[in-house]
Amino acid sequence: MRGLGNRTVLYQQHVAASLGLYNNDFLSVDILHEKGPITAGELSKLTGLATGSVTALIDRLEKNGFVRRENDPNDRRKVIIVPIYENKEEVSNTYLPLHTAMVKLASSYTDDELEFITQFLGKASMVLEEQIHHLSSTTHSKSST
Amino acid sequence: MRGLGNRTVLYQQHVAASLGLYNNDFLSVDILHEKGPITAGELSKLTGLATGSVTALIDRLEKNGFVRRENDPNDRRKVIIVPIYENKEEVSNTYLPLHTAMVKLASSYTDDELEFITQFLGKASMVLEEQIHHLSSTTHSKSST
Repeated sequence: MRGLGNRTVLYQQHVAASLGLYNNDFLSVDILHEKGPITAGELSKLTGLATGSVTALIDRLEKNGFVRRENDPNDRRKVIIVPIYENKEEVSNTYLPLHTAMVKLASSYTDDELEFITQFLGKASMVLEEQIHHLSSTTHSKSST
Repeated sequence: MRGLGNRTVLYQQHVAASLGLYNNDFLSVDILHEKGPITAGELSKLTGLATGSVTALIDRLEKNGFVRRENDPNDRRKVIIVPIYENKEEVSNTYLPLHTAMVKLASSYTDDELEFITQFLGKASMVLEEQIHHLSSTTHSKSST
């Protein structure tokens, strides 16, 4: 698990570098892609980054055409951040070799096995999300004392 | 897989931040812990970082007591980097809640299921390692032209 974790972090850094983006910037776009359009406040909570940092981050991403700010169709007073980077050819080209390799790996498993693995990954994901909140609140309480 | 990946990256960043370390610095210590003592050149290859960056990184980590340089007992002309951070109480304390939560998750599976999951994670890990090499060589060839 830890070995996979380190390689995931390294991989993500290399993708960000090859796209000429900061790590946090690229990570945020990936989170937006997963969660769908969310507000800057929600992104701040999910990443554990301060609100000011998130505003600057969204400015950079909007300038580079990775996201755009829109009025929330359900609540016109809210501004949501919409990821548009999946349309960018350079992003899909960068991810393509990983995608191909993962599809190849998946094809060596039965549907039942894949379902089992997916469930495990989902649970491990939830454990990590809880731990991020935990660390985030510990760090904040440390810096405020 | 992608959701787990993003949370892994975020978690690692929060751990590094709570220990007051740069992301790459902490990541390198974790790689050293996994691979055992290696040379600076090998660490450079594994992380995809330039040799000069790795030297500065090892200097910082040695100063903070996370690693130490030693002569390779098998080849006195070589210097190897030995991770010593596992002895550091602050590191084990930071990882403890994740460790506890992961042990709890694992206890809900049978030995056979865990063996199966571990094998999958190992394979996914190898796929990512190949992709890192791939991206790393693409980026280097881009910057040299």
